[in-house]
Order: sequence, then C-alpha cells, then structure tokens
Amino acid sequence: MGQTKLDAGPVEAAGRGLLQRRVLLAVLAGGGGFPMATAAFAQPSALPVPDWSKFPGSPFVGYGQPSKFEADVVRTAGSATNPANAPGTGAVWAPLHRLHGTITPNGLHFERSHSGIPDIDPDAHRLLIHGMVKRPTIFTLETLARYPMESRITFVECSGNSLALYAKQAMDGTAQTLHGLASCAEWTGVKLSILLDEAGIDPAAEWLLAEGADAAGMDRSVPIKKAMDDAMVALYQNGERLRPSNGYPMRLLLPGYEGNMNIKWLRRLKATTGPTMTREETSKYTTLLPSGKAWQFVYPMDVKSVITHPSPGLSMQGAGFYQVSGLAWSGKGRISKVEVSADGGNSWAPAVLQEPVLPIAFTRFRIPWNWDGGATTLQSRATDEAGNTQPTRSQLIAERGNKAFYHFNAIAGWAVNEQGTLKHVYV
Amino acid sequence: MGQTKLDAGPVEAAGRGLLQRRVLLAVLAGGGGFPMATAAFAQPSALPVPDWSKFPGSPFVGYGQPSKFEADVVRTAGSATNPANAPGTGAVWAPLHRLHGTITPNGLHFERSHSGIPDIDPDAHRLLIHGMVKRPTIFTLETLARYPMESRITFVECSGNSLALYAKQAMDGTAQTLHGLASCAEWTGVKLSILLDEAGIDPAAEWLLAEGADAAGMDRSVPIKKAMDDAMVALYQNGERLRPSNGYPMRLLLPGYEGNMNIKWLRRLKATTGPTMTREETSKYTTLLPSGKAWQFVYPMDVKSVITHPSPGLSMQGAGFYQVSGLAWSGKGRISKVEVSADGGNSWAPAVLQEPVLPIAFTRFRIPWNWDGGATTLQSRATDEAGNTQPTRSQLIAERGNKAFYHFNAIAGWAVNEQGTLKHVYV
Repeated sequence: MGQTKLDAGPVEAAGRGLLQRRVLLAVLAGGGGFPMATAAFAQPSALPVPDWSKFPGSPFVGYGQPSKFEADVVRTAGSATNPANAPGTGAVWAPLHRLHGTITPNGLHFERSHSGIPDIDPDAHRLLIHGMVKRPTIFTLETLARYPMESRITFVECSGNSLALYAKQAMDGTAQTLHGLASCAEWTGVKLSILLDEAGIDPAAEWLLAEGADAAGMDRSVPIKKAMDDAMVALYQNGERLRPSNGYPMRLLLPGYEGNMNIKWLRRLKATTGPTMTREETSKYTTLLPSGKAWQFVYPMDVKSVITHPSPGLSMQGAGFYQVSGLAWSGKGRISKVEVSADGGNSWAPAVLQEPVLPIAFTRFRIPWNWDGGATTLQSRATDEAGNTQPTRSQLIAERGNKAFYHFNAIAGWAVNEQGTLKHVYV
Repeated sequence: MGQTKLDAGPVEAAGRGLLQRRVLLAVLAGGGGFPMATAAFAQPSALPVPDWSKFPGSPFVGYGQPSKFEADVVRTAGSATNPANAPGTGAVWAPLHRLHGTITPNGLHFERSHSGIPDIDPDAHRLLIHGMVKRPTIFTLETLARYPMESRITFVECSGNSLALYAKQAMDGTAQTLHGLASCAEWTGVKLSILLDEAGIDPAAEWLLAEGADAAGMDRSVPIKKAMDDAMVALYQNGERLRPSNGYPMRLLLPGYEGNMNIKWLRRLKATTGPTMTREETSKYTTLLPSGKAWQFVYPMDVKSVITHPSPGLSMQGAGFYQVSGLAWSGKGRISKVEVSADGGNSWAPAVLQEPVLPIAFTRFRIPWNWDGGATTLQSRATDEAGNTQPTRSQLIAERGNKAFYHFNAIAGWAVNEQGTLKHVYV
C-alpha cells in the first residue's frame, strides 16, 4: 500500500519558513522537505525576455476579466432537467479545486435556478411585506438603500450539494462536480428585522413565506426567529451589486440555512402563523428516511469539509512535499478544528486554520504533507464550535439510508495512486 | 447654514432594529427616524408581475457577469499620459461610491500601469531569485504552487491616491475619481521568506530589487526586513488567479506599503546590500518638501478614510434618516476608531466598525445621521491601532507644501447643499 505514516517528527526542510511553521503544525511527513525549484546557479541571462516584456500591453478597461489562459476555470453545469419547458433549470458547480483562499469570486459563485436567470430591471422591482403586519409595505430598491446596512462574510450551500455520495457506488468526480454547490462571499444589505419592524410585524406571527420574482416563483417558509435574528435582505455581493444569477437586485440571506431558502430575486415576504407548505418544502427538500418517514424543515447545513488541493483533476508531480489544503464550513457556527488523514484514516493530524475564522463562513485549512510516492487515501474531518463533527459515510447512511438526497456531510476521500492521480473513493 | 447638530439623544425611530442599535451607536441626529418606505396597506395585488416573473430566464453560463443595469459601475481612467508612446500608461480608479462592504470585486480593483497590461502565458513565465543568495533559483508557476500558501485580506493603495487634494483649489470629483486608487481583496500565495530561504539568502543582504515583466520593467527596492516579515508572492485574488491588470500570474504583495512597490507580473528578485536607486524611487515616488529636500523611501500608507455614502454622484432624497458609511484603512495596522462629523467639524461621533476589523485592510464604518435638510459638511477622521490619526489638510500642507504629490491622507470633506447634492470641499 505504501501508506504515508503520520508523524510529527523531524522534517529535513529547507528554509526557515517551514522550520518556524513546524512549531505550529503537525506535519504529515516522514522525511524530505520542500521541492527544490529548478537548477541552481540560474542567472539573469537564463530568464526569458518574451514579447510581453518588450512591447506595451493592453489599454485599460472599465470592468476587468480573467486572463484568457484561465478560460477553463468556469462553473460547470450538471443536470438540466426538462430544458424544453424550463430553460436554466438545474445548477452550475463552482470550481473549488481551481480556487484558493475563502472568497468565491462573483463570476464563479455556484448557482441553482428553478426557471432560469431573470433579467430584472432594478427600478421596476418591488419587495412587498404583508400578511400579519400592521402596515403592509412595498419597498423599492432606492428606498431600501436608505436603511442601515451591515456586511458579513458567509457561505451559501445548496442542500443537495454532495448528493452523489448517497449513491451505493462512489462516482468519479472532482471537488467541483461533487461538492461545488457551495460558495462564500461578503454580503451587504439591510437586516430583515429592521424591515419587519418597519412593517409592524404582529408578535403572533411565527413564520414568513418568502417568494422570488423568477418565473418559478421559488418560495419557502422561514421561521420568524431566524428572520428576526441574523437574516438579511442582501443587495451587494463582494462589494458590487448582486449578480443576476445570485438574486439581482435583492435576495434573502439566511446565514447557514440550506441554499434554496435564501430566496433570490426576493419580491414578497408574508407573515403567517404557520409554514405555508409550498411544493419546495413538501415534495422537495425533505429527507426520506429508511423508515419511510421524512424529515421536513431541516434548515442549518451541517459541518463539512472538502480537500481541494490535491484533488481529482490536479495531478501530483512525484513524491515530496505538498500542502494539503481545503475548505471547511458549518451552518452552526465557527469551525473549531479540521483533522487530516493521509493514511486511509489510521491517524489524523490537526490542520492550521487560516485566520480570521468567521462564523458560518468558509474556513481554509492547510497542512504540510510529505508524500512518499505510494498509494494512499486523503480525507478531512471538520468539527464546529457547537461540537458537531463530520460523521463517517457509513454512520450517515445507517441513519438516513440511500434514499436520502439532501444534507450529505460525511467525511469524503480522495485515493492517490502511485502516478499521483487522484480519484473519489468512499472511506 | 442649517448645520446638523451632533446629538446622541432620543431618536423617534421606527423599529426595534434601530432601537437596539442605539445602544451601540452614537447617533448623528436630532429627531426623526427611518423613512417610511411607501404607502401603507399595499396588498399583493399592488405588486407588479413583470415579464421576468412569467417567462423562464436565461440559461447558465460558465463565468458570470454583472447585470446589464449595472453597466455604469466601472473603473474610470484618469490621465493617460503620452498614449502614443506608451499605451495603458496611467491608472483606472475603483468606483468606491458604488460599492458596499470591504471587498473590491476583481473586475473593479483599481489599476496602475506603466506600460499597459501584458498578456502573459503562465507556462512561459519565470521568477528568478538571484544576487546575494547561495542558490540562484528560477521558479515556474507550477513549482511555486507546490509551496505552502497563506491568505490575507489586505488593501493596496497607489501612493498617488488623492493627490488632487494637494492642489490649492478643491477640485470637483467623487470618492472614485479623488480617492479610488485603493482597493481591498483576499490575496493567497507563498510567503516570500520561504522562497528567499529556498534560494539561500545571504544574511548580509539588506535589500531586494523587485522587477516586473511588463514592458516598463517596473522596479523598486524593498528592505529585506519587510520581505522576510509579511511579504507574499501572490497567485490568487479573491479566490481566483490574479487578474492580468493586477499582475497575472504573480505579483509581489507588501501589505501596507505604497502600491507601486507591490510589483505586478513579478519576474525577478535580486538580493543586494543597498537600494538600487531605480527611476521609480528617485525621479518618481519621492515627496518634495517646501525646503527643497525630498523624502525618499516612504513606504507605509498612512491612516485614511473616505465617506462613500452619501458622497458626490449619489444624490440625497430629502431630509430624514441616512446611514453615513465609508472606508478606513492604514498601512500600519488595524483601524481603531473612525469619527464622523456632520456639522463642519464642530462635533464628532464615533462610527461603528464592521467586524472583523483586520490589520492593513479596508474597514467599513457606518453611523446613522438624521439630516435636517440644511446645508452642511460631512467628514470622517480615522485613527489606527498605532495611534496615528488623520491630520487636517492644513496640517498636512504646512508640513509638505503644495509641491508634494504622494501619500495624501488628510481629512476630506463633502459639502451637502439644501437640494441634497454633494460636492468636494476643503475642510
């Protein structure tokens, strides 16, 4: 098997950088060090002087784009069910294995649409708050912009993210195609509690119906407690106005709650005594258990982690030092710990969490690994500040069976072969 | 004058949201409250049902773009000196007054180019570390990606940002055109200290020469202390690879140091005993004092703040509640305080700083203001954790005269007239 043994012992690392770092990190390593970059004694004459160093480059543009050499770093579509009747139904997955850090750039934020992306004129868009309120109120975008705003960096995850891992056989896939229905951005908008107060919310109201302006009229019921706690009507995403695919000109943001409840293109909030029992919370977005009963209203996304580097689609170039890096998140608070195993789960070592570790946000974890060149399996296991830890897949399946569809959060694995190719496997 | 008096006293605010907030905030207010949004008793039938709610929307795309209705939210070019000889020479300013939060989206990050934007093939790009090192070394992008990475959210500011405010007469302008050569992003890359150790940096080396691969060969000298402390070779910007206009495929990141030292398209680092005295640190990027002497090697950008909302280009819609909001930053650490005055500097009240407040990063400040409809002047004054506070413009000019060009960080002002139009004024 050539398993890489976990060992926090000596590493023949070149450079003060790693040596200092060893004080802080457990090292998944048995020896070796950084790769030496290339031949020593490289001199300035060895540096190429390509045309771009000889001739002036392109002029300025008002709104910049990625390099043409990054054209393959894109979201990829999964199933587009019933495209003849409902264009844009389905989802696009974010390329998690091609990204670093924690912010998802707006052009690559995952997207899930039930009837395509509406092209909304912001001046014509309206938000109605009605039902159990003293003053049913319509807000324009211009009016909303007068209210106090706040910002928070938070992830949004589709409740169907990683659903392929409920299948009996492990499917081929990447961090993108298996786990890419999650993204993280800095959102800015108006606290929903302020708007509900403005409309004079009836203290007897227990729920809200939230409805989108897309042709699907996507709608979900939201407990009033969440609405009054940390919910936001978000207007800005990573500094600029929301992208059309993420709800332009406004969306509901329910930090940590399953993605589809964060209603995009928000047009209506109705205060009610009970849940409205919409299609999207009865026939869909419930979890069918082996007993034949189902969980309904399963809101917070559970603690989860994905190793993005190395991972399928990114080949490894021979034995030696690698930094294992990935993303962890929980709908229930901050990530408190991520452990990584490089020996198929026999031993685990804690990764370093990139500061600042924010609640209900992507957290980047990293840990050095000295690959001995043998076949092995990488996996990560996250724990949140509420004490929740990712279960194994067999624990999750024992509880939910194989007919469940949503909220998959078990430990996932990448097998590494001796050629440095990675593949999704069950662990 | 109709000056708005500062007063932390009672506000007739609608809604628990503001009332709770009043515990935390000093309120720039003498009465009034939130704007009532529109007519009460709006019913669902009053909600328009536009075509985008009736017909399916657009299909998915791999890389998303802003709404067509946001087409005017773009960077704007300032002077393009000598365009015939050097296309792309000059800068584009970020639309700070059209953004919220702290992250600048990559398409709108300010840009300063000395010879246009090179179109670099990442596979052909090389980084050489040489000079006073044991092992002169060439790094490819692929090799660099093997090294441990780290992320940090930090601002970059051109040392010439706000230079118009050195002029004797206050020029018309906006937060964008006057102060928009500053932006903030999450950068991910390899600590420079690791790479210098890898090359075997000579302990006697005191400086680095850093050089870009653009046709200008932009180059600056960097003290080795900064290089070994928190400098980074950045590969990713807000999750994705750097944009071409910001150094694709790699740039030097020197948190807090003047923008032009953060060499884009980084191709060469040479360890030396002294500064190289390049054109860009002798004839340019020095500060000429009234005495005829000049400051050279003025590195950290000083504490600064800009009110972005309301500000010129955003008209106010009548008296009543507004949230005054802006950005503060310092190259010397965290922002510890931002005070706002709505009465021409007679009184000041502390704004709320959006958490998390990160070192050497944009910090969003906000404070409620109840505008009485009279003419007045808004200004903000930031203090950093090192104890530095923005000077008044007259203090700055007394020290530096009117021939200085860089590092302007004095308190700036926006005059508000009775029509709610804002204008840049000296305060």
